[in-house]
Amino acid sequence: MRTLAVYPGSFDPPTNGHLDIIERSSRVFSRVIVAVAVNLRKNAFFTPAERVRMLKRLTSTMANVEVTSFRGLLVDFARVQEAHILVRGIRAISDFEYEYQMAHMNRKLDQEIDTVIMMTGERHSAISSNIVKEIAQFGGKIDDLVPPLVRDILISKLKGAKRR
Amino acid sequence: MRTLAVYPGSFDPPTNGHLDIIERSSRVFSRVIVAVAVNLRKNAFFTPAERVRMLKRLTSTMANVEVTSFRGLLVDFARVQEAHILVRGIRAISDFEYEYQMAHMNRKLDQEIDTVIMMTGERHSAISSNIVKEIAQFGGKIDDLVPPLVRDILISKLKGAKRR
Amino acid sequence: MRTLAVYPGSFDPPTNGHLDIIERSSRVFSRVIVAVAVNLRKNAFFTPAERVRMLKRLTSTMANVEVTSFRGLLVDFARVQEAHILVRGIRAISDFEYEYQMAHMNRKLDQEIDTVIMMTGERHSAISSNIVKEIAQFGGKIDDLVPPLVRDILISKLKGAKRR
Amino acid sequence: MRTLAVYPGSFDPPTNGHLDIIERSSRVFSRVIVAVAVNLRKNAFFTPAERVRMLKRLTSTMANVEVTSFRGLLVDFARVQEAHILVRGIRAISDFEYEYQMAHMNRKLDQEIDTVIMMTGERHSAISSNIVKEIAQFGGKIDDLVPPLVRDILISKLKGAKRR
Amino acid sequence: MRTLAVYPGSFDPPTNGHLDIIERSSRVFSRVIVAVAVNLRKNAFFTPAERVRMLKRLTSTMANVEVTSFRGLLVDFARVQEAHILVRGIRAISDFEYEYQMAHMNRKLDQEIDTVIMMTGERHSAISSNIVKEIAQFGGKIDDLVPPLVRDILISKLKGAKRR
Amino acid sequence: MRTLAVYPGSFDPPTNGHLDIIERSSRVFSRVIVAVAVNLRKNAFFTPAERVRMLKRLTSTMANVEVTSFRGLLVDFARVQEAHILVRGIRAISDFEYEYQMAHMNRKLDQEIDTVIMMTGERHSAISSNIVKEIAQFGGKIDDLVPPLVRDILISKLKGAKRR
Repeated sequence: MRTLAVYPGSFDPPTNGHLDIIERSSRVFSRVIVAVAVNLRKNAFFTPAERVRMLKRLTSTMANVEVTSFRGLLVDFARVQEAHILVRGIRAISDFEYEYQMAHMNRKLDQEIDTVIMMTGERHSAISSNIVKEIAQFGGKIDDLVPPLVRDILISKLKGAKRR
Repeated sequence: MRTLAVYPGSFDPPTNGHLDIIERSSRVFSRVIVAVAVNLRKNAFFTPAERVRMLKRLTSTMANVEVTSFRGLLVDFARVQEAHILVRGIRAISDFEYEYQMAHMNRKLDQEIDTVIMMTGERHSAISSNIVKEIAQFGGKIDDLVPPLVRDILISKLKGAKRR
Repeated sequence: MRTLAVYPGSFDPPTNGHLDIIERSSRVFSRVIVAVAVNLRKNAFFTPAERVRMLKRLTSTMANVEVTSFRGLLVDFARVQEAHILVRGIRAISDFEYEYQMAHMNRKLDQEIDTVIMMTGERHSAISSNIVKEIAQFGGKIDDLVPPLVRDILISKLKGAKRR
Repeated sequence: MRTLAVYPGSFDPPTNGHLDIIERSSRVFSRVIVAVAVNLRKNAFFTPAERVRMLKRLTSTMANVEVTSFRGLLVDFARVQEAHILVRGIRAISDFEYEYQMAHMNRKLDQEIDTVIMMTGERHSAISSNIVKEIAQFGGKIDDLVPPLVRDILISKLKGAKRR
Repeated sequence: MRTLAVYPGSFDPPTNGHLDIIERSSRVFSRVIVAVAVNLRKNAFFTPAERVRMLKRLTSTMANVEVTSFRGLLVDFARVQEAHILVRGIRAISDFEYEYQMAHMNRKLDQEIDTVIMMTGERHSAISSNIVKEIAQFGGKIDDLVPPLVRDILISKLKGAKRR
Repeated sequence: MRTLAVYPGSFDPPTNGHLDIIERSSRVFSRVIVAVAVNLRKNAFFTPAERVRMLKRLTSTMANVEVTSFRGLLVDFARVQEAHILVRGIRAISDFEYEYQMAHMNRKLDQEIDTVIMMTGERHSAISSNIVKEIAQFGGKIDDLVPPLVRDILISKLKGAKRR
């Protein structure tokens, strides 16, 4: 049996928590598509292209993981990809509630699609992209929170933003 | 890639919610072992053998689903089966908290094992084996809560219990 | 429009929190039946008759409140009473989850029945019958937690229990 | 006893979940006022007048339901209407927390006012006005989420917004 | 042993709930620094200077309480102050989750720092600065929610804002 | 200022999570009394004397930590000790709710007493005495969950229990 899963998110930027979920998913499913959601209303710090590029480099050694971006409804994207599994990581109860509602809503939109939740490792349970950006902005140390690649790009982009 | 998942539980008795999770799991993983936990301290209404028998009949049409029982630590059972995925269904926040702790604990016991959570369908979200037994005991209608097979066995066993 | 509501519970013993809900309910519904659940398996400290008697005296001035006890399924009791509203008080999130499941389950059993949740006043939000009994047992002061009537009966019954 | 309840909300737009609560409330209370909150700071998609008009047509067959809008404090509106009951629907734990705080705050502001929570039916538990708008915007199917009237008005308004 | 604790927050404006935590903290720790967080992105109603001034007057009788403001990372501020305890007040579950994540994150950033949570008194559990501002804006009574000093400054500033 | 805190619990047996809280508390308060609650109704695996002995050995290097046991109401014990601070560790939301209720209840019983919550380190967040006993019973590895001293005593006592 071949299983194809989509792992959607903002990844603005990708954190160690995200990578943890990607690695676990790649051991559970035949193929995993990491899908950067392009949300026109939310102000992202990194462009979709930047986020896809970072994720591609971070997952380059995982043979069954692909990275792409998508616009519009997640279920439409999954259907086009012929994926019937959505992967979500959960760090906290409030995450769970939101995911619970989205999972039911997505199943209402497409009966074929199942949501599967994977647990972030304990060490990563407090990491969020927003907290990472906030800490970096004030010069805090983010080495335990994101891969070195992301740390360097984030710090360099923050410097550029200040200079402007 | 072949994936082998264990779906453990008391199943005392199996409900429509349990069957929902078994069906979903059988579409996501190559093989699913439904594992009846034999807990010596908890008073179960059905014997492990009865529960295994019911589950076997209920899953007889699912080619990649097996049913068995186990004693002792779940991670030890999974290791012996060479399964590295545990499946859990979640109906509510309080379930989530418990599962969250167990997932972290199981990973502490065996780094190779990942817990994957599947969402019970909305219609099944209020069903628990305990509520089913309580309703049946007072002669309430449980047709929407368990498969006909379980309903008949439960009602007949309850009658036998009263007669004694 | 005449509305008839059932407020079920163990009331072992009734607390200021219970009375708060009864008073609020009596202002919202035409008639309120306070229904002491007789649970054969749970060990209650007070007999159903004692609990009904206490509640009757505590609600004697509320013209539209009745007190009785019931066995079996709550929805069956409500149907016999021709009540289609169940009242529940909620003190905390964990209460809410349980009530949420029970409300959905009761509606599955009887489509005509609606559950309505009333908020316990802030001052009563930490009171539970179990905590009251525990404090009284150790000689703690329970004057803010239960009406004087309940306090006296509880203390006197505890003394009797120790003497035996 | 005549009971008058206010069911406040943004209703931007009204969903099947809202209608479910309105119908249940109309069976429990003598009269129900559905009150569209006019919030000057929040950007609503529909004008208050549009929302009132939709709700009026959706509740036209319920004899004891009225629809209106209000500005300012909810408790002031309720007092002017001589209503002492606020109705709220709850879909999830996080809703509950917010409602819990608001209920206590409203009682602080007016001791006469009680908040009563009604449970949304299971099928509607994942629906929110925001999710509906997001799905509609991307051309997703919202037939199970809102009444046909709302669906048509929402889709037509979204087309107008894009054309501009 | 001398203990130095930092109690950080927006205090926009300070409420009776905040004062409750400050008072309790001043009895538990040798010295308490109330630290107004200057967040450049969030739109505050009061300037940092106004908030510091209000807090200074409100705590003028507590000998071991100081008030100041800070920018940047909380852990950096604490380190400079040589404080190794962060105090937080919690009113609700959702607060708890956020604080839980922040506590773990702050410990990741500085192993020496411990977060200590104090419980707001029941009477204050529904008060938040945002609710206070919303009620005041509509002319609601906030006497039970904030000290008289804050009430007068808030009302007078709101009048000034409308006049402009 | 000298601060005296009581850290109550069952400690059946003490875990790494408990020790984590004891260590943190000993850095925050002048003196910490670890108080083993003797509950006559709950079946404990270790006797109060065994638990006190284990805790004494585990805290022998912490100069400002004492260990004792108590019966009856916690607030009465605290008053006799002239302690006005109760320390509690929290691992999860459900813990929080219970602690929240107990904190308010204890303050109702004694206005002088404040409850302070300390966060268990992430690595210990899934550990509970019950889970430890369950794992040990089935021969699972508990080296990461309890100190070596507790591990040896627990395993040896479990062997003794089986032999009998």
